[in-house]
Amino acid sequence: MRTHYCGQLNKSLVDQEVTLCGWVNKRRDLGGLIFLDIRDREGLVQAVVDPDETAIFGTAEKLRNEFCIKVSGVVRARPESQINKDMATGEVELYIKGLEILNSSAPLPLDFNQENSEEARLRYRYLDLRRPVMNQRLQFRSKVTSAVRRFLDDNGFLDMETPILTKATPEGARDYLVPSRTHKGEFFALPQSPQLFKQLLMVAGFDRYYQIVKCFRDEDLRADRQPEFTQIDIETTFMDGKQVMAMTEKMVRNVFNELLDVDLGDFPSMTYAEAMRRFGSDKPDLRNPLELVDVADILKDVEFKVFSGPANDAKGRVAVIKVPGGASMTRKSIDGYTEFVGKYGAKGMAWIKVNDVAAGIEGLQSPIVKFLNEDVAAQLIERTEAKDGDILLFGSDTKNVVTDALGALRLKLGEDFGLVEDKWAPLWVVDFPMFEELEDGALTPLHHPFTAPSNMTPAELSANPAEALSDAYDMVLNGCELGGGSVRIHNQDMQAEVFKILGISDEEAEEKFGFLLDALQYGAPPHAGLAFGLDRMVMLMVGADSIRDVMAFPKTSTAACPLTSAPGVANPDALVELGIQVIPAANNSEEA
Amino acid sequence: MRTHYCGQLNKSLVDQEVTLCGWVNKRRDLGGLIFLDIRDREGLVQAVVDPDETAIFGTAEKLRNEFCIKVSGVVRARPESQINKDMATGEVELYIKGLEILNSSAPLPLDFNQENSEEARLRYRYLDLRRPVMNQRLQFRSKVTSAVRRFLDDNGFLDMETPILTKATPEGARDYLVPSRTHKGEFFALPQSPQLFKQLLMVAGFDRYYQIVKCFRDEDLRADRQPEFTQIDIETTFMDGKQVMAMTEKMVRNVFNELLDVDLGDFPSMTYAEAMRRFGSDKPDLRNPLELVDVADILKDVEFKVFSGPANDAKGRVAVIKVPGGASMTRKSIDGYTEFVGKYGAKGMAWIKVNDVAAGIEGLQSPIVKFLNEDVAAQLIERTEAKDGDILLFGSDTKNVVTDALGALRLKLGEDFGLVEDKWAPLWVVDFPMFEELEDGALTPLHHPFTAPSNMTPAELSANPAEALSDAYDMVLNGCELGGGSVRIHNQDMQAEVFKILGISDEEAEEKFGFLLDALQYGAPPHAGLAFGLDRMVMLMVGADSIRDVMAFPKTSTAACPLTSAPGVANPDALVELGIQVIPAANNSEEA
Repeated sequence: MRTHYCGQLNKSLVDQEVTLCGWVNKRRDLGGLIFLDIRDREGLVQAVVDPDETAIFGTAEKLRNEFCIKVSGVVRARPESQINKDMATGEVELYIKGLEILNSSAPLPLDFNQENSEEARLRYRYLDLRRPVMNQRLQFRSKVTSAVRRFLDDNGFLDMETPILTKATPEGARDYLVPSRTHKGEFFALPQSPQLFKQLLMVAGFDRYYQIVKCFRDEDLRADRQPEFTQIDIETTFMDGKQVMAMTEKMVRNVFNELLDVDLGDFPSMTYAEAMRRFGSDKPDLRNPLELVDVADILKDVEFKVFSGPANDAKGRVAVIKVPGGASMTRKSIDGYTEFVGKYGAKGMAWIKVNDVAAGIEGLQSPIVKFLNEDVAAQLIERTEAKDGDILLFGSDTKNVVTDALGALRLKLGEDFGLVEDKWAPLWVVDFPMFEELEDGALTPLHHPFTAPSNMTPAELSANPAEALSDAYDMVLNGCELGGGSVRIHNQDMQAEVFKILGISDEEAEEKFGFLLDALQYGAPPHAGLAFGLDRMVMLMVGADSIRDVMAFPKTSTAACPLTSAPGVANPDALVELGIQVIPAANNSEEA
Repeated sequence: MRTHYCGQLNKSLVDQEVTLCGWVNKRRDLGGLIFLDIRDREGLVQAVVDPDETAIFGTAEKLRNEFCIKVSGVVRARPESQINKDMATGEVELYIKGLEILNSSAPLPLDFNQENSEEARLRYRYLDLRRPVMNQRLQFRSKVTSAVRRFLDDNGFLDMETPILTKATPEGARDYLVPSRTHKGEFFALPQSPQLFKQLLMVAGFDRYYQIVKCFRDEDLRADRQPEFTQIDIETTFMDGKQVMAMTEKMVRNVFNELLDVDLGDFPSMTYAEAMRRFGSDKPDLRNPLELVDVADILKDVEFKVFSGPANDAKGRVAVIKVPGGASMTRKSIDGYTEFVGKYGAKGMAWIKVNDVAAGIEGLQSPIVKFLNEDVAAQLIERTEAKDGDILLFGSDTKNVVTDALGALRLKLGEDFGLVEDKWAPLWVVDFPMFEELEDGALTPLHHPFTAPSNMTPAELSANPAEALSDAYDMVLNGCELGGGSVRIHNQDMQAEVFKILGISDEEAEEKFGFLLDALQYGAPPHAGLAFGLDRMVMLMVGADSIRDVMAFPKTSTAACPLTSAPGVANPDALVELGIQVIPAANNSEEA
């Protein structure tokens, strides 16, 4: 119906006849003329209706915002004085010689000139998505998937589909369940990831797999969580962890280069241990220069139990964050940070203002200075490289509390003091522990139970599982986990050993993962992979605050869709056919 | 880990050192040497272990089929006498200088040398998919999606995702339901297609959308149906039906050209009416030369009620299929076909063997010849262009019965008589009726209720809905519907009129499709689209018999997965959390 997109008109088309289709973005009546800004997905262009074109002018007078129209006319250069440099098409305008109203529009329930509520935006999502910022974000998302696919296609990866209707895991509290009609009383589950299927594809010999695929998790939603989200899922055979990292790093670098003209450079790599020690996080934001500095050795003999207790405890940690120029902090501000770290379990927060380094301990200001001596003070200043005007904020508690609290405090201070550099800071985090210890001493996998340990036999793993490192790797960008992966266990004995360490009985393993254990018997190849969160990657790339802003039809924070009113009540007959019934609210233990 | 794929070795690599990873396809011990066929996704290559390489030979003696190994060695040209022309790598072999067993294999539960049961194939799918024929089919599928995506990307289509957790439609008997945890007692449904969402994306101004997307239908399964299947889903704005057809035809032509080196040429187009008249099907297989020939006008005055009844009834039909050379059919064979058409409601099947055209009615052989006269006989022969030795098979009943029965008979005869040409026969079927009349006289949409009528106002549609044609189009290939689409209704009044004709009340329309009706108010653009069945397209292209053979992990005909044992019993706690319970079998009306 059209010859060009609105956003494509430029000086090279002057004097040409073109036809456009789009929406009336704005109409202005000025000096007897009608000016229209016409919008389509590629942008805006100004069009002019002359009153001499009587019939067209009559139609144009009916136009309101968001009418869908088709116009034809001649492209004209605008006079120098009317050039609009803020508009990509601002050097030209269309002199309208034909106008057809394709559809009228009622006044919009959303006001594009103001912030609308999340509820309203989602209810009228098809209008919210007309806003150029949203339209461009979704278009950008499509460009990202396209670039990712091209890279993977060019590198021999096969785009393969795995099932959405799959096995409900007995413990899968976060699984969405789907009742089966043919097998009454039984359920499918929607996959939290295609992990096991992609491993089976490697056993089947497909060598390199990828899929941009929906995954599902029924959990409390946060800003960056949705019931359904999208993964770039990758698995390879006969490649080790380093090769997978190199390949996927190249992919991400290419995508940033191609779509943002940003060179991410070679990604640095850091062990999990170092990340936790220096940044209190397994996904450190390296744009933030603040670090955690361990000082237990300096403080273990002071007469202040808050310090000396944890400093002498193998499970304790004493660390400090130095905030340059932070000595200007008010008492109220310090109290605020103390309350903040309290949320992470810290029972308090010691602090020292460094007023005058040259004065030694006399130059320090703090309620706790009295517990220190000149030597300790000197060591603290030396270790933290504190300067006049800095403040030292202490965490002293169990290792976990200090690491979590100071890790979070570091991010907050970075924001509050404007220390976060405006750049891209990618990072690999490697050498994760295989297991985390739960409070009851049981071990749980830090990633998932199919992750291979680094260079170890089953016997070696069994001997000291708590210390074992895995062959896993996370890609972090600006403090967000973009993706994570690992070398997988391809050896049946090793997989059985891991299940044993996790306290999974043979029966349970057989029940839950029998098919994987079976598959490992038949010449399963070494394999490794990685999965990226596409939504989060796009969110970071376009600078959105929430993954909701890069999804066409997201759910609300209560996992509902205001647009279609989903979820809804089901037809009772359908439930009978499925062999299930809704528990009346009175019998519902959760609501009773 | 490797330098080449097994299937890549050729004469250009002679004398080079290479490293391969793969599976032992076969081991033969011959003349003191060990020969291995090593397999990876790209093919097979022969490797030789010399007993002089003592250590390697010792390892090689342990190898069994399907062991996963890594080998290095030198590529050698085979002596002329040993060249294997059936093998892509048959001119060379690898002289092994290094051998590592990456994983051993237990004896396989599937015998690759024989046909295995569907159950066994699906249970050990990761082994079934190692079979070169299956491996190649799935690889081919990946090539198809890749080619489709490239075409659509290059034509300005945006790859956009629509929700999987969506609204349960009140009448959606074929919806898979998903109980919501946050909204207890309520359900999401898995989409049967993204139809409404893609229309909303057009309203949002994305202009050209596509998605290769899973769709779900909970229904009895046939050879070419699966609970989850994949659509190439396309929608465009400001394009009419012809433009969508041209664009998608070009896409399919490109894919066939690129992947099969087949030129499908320009697709012919046929109206629905003609397709039903000549072929008794809305998806005629044009490789089959047989046609239905209408003869009611010839037979309406004969003294044979079986003919004259339907011939004089506006809702009746009398038609004939001429089978060249079919006069040789035995009585038993004719009885077989009579029984066959019976399945489609035909109460019998009249037939005439044409033994001698020159002899007129005397040359015809049939129990019903006595009801005909010379003139009728001559007209039948002229109309059907029958030759000596042909047979005429009659259908005479209601229009629907004759069309269905002879449409099916035509296909069966084509197969039985070897008449189906070995070629690709694409076709567009167009000008569908808007509605079908149900037995109770109610109208139901032939496609879906968002399909636009051809060139009609709401008032014109209302005046004679049963005769209205829609702006819909199906792409047919070799008698299979590859895809179907239509221009959609973008006008609110027209959509309301269609709902009215379908007997959908305002309340019901509001409840089910309120969001679509809302969206049409706000400058909804003209839009049109199409959806292809990817599974079926790939199945046709690779010559498989079932879509199961082109899906990595399909379900059985009872919608179960023998590999993972899905569906399964859910954790009772999870059901309580979801606010649902399984109806005990005794209370279950279906099973009681």
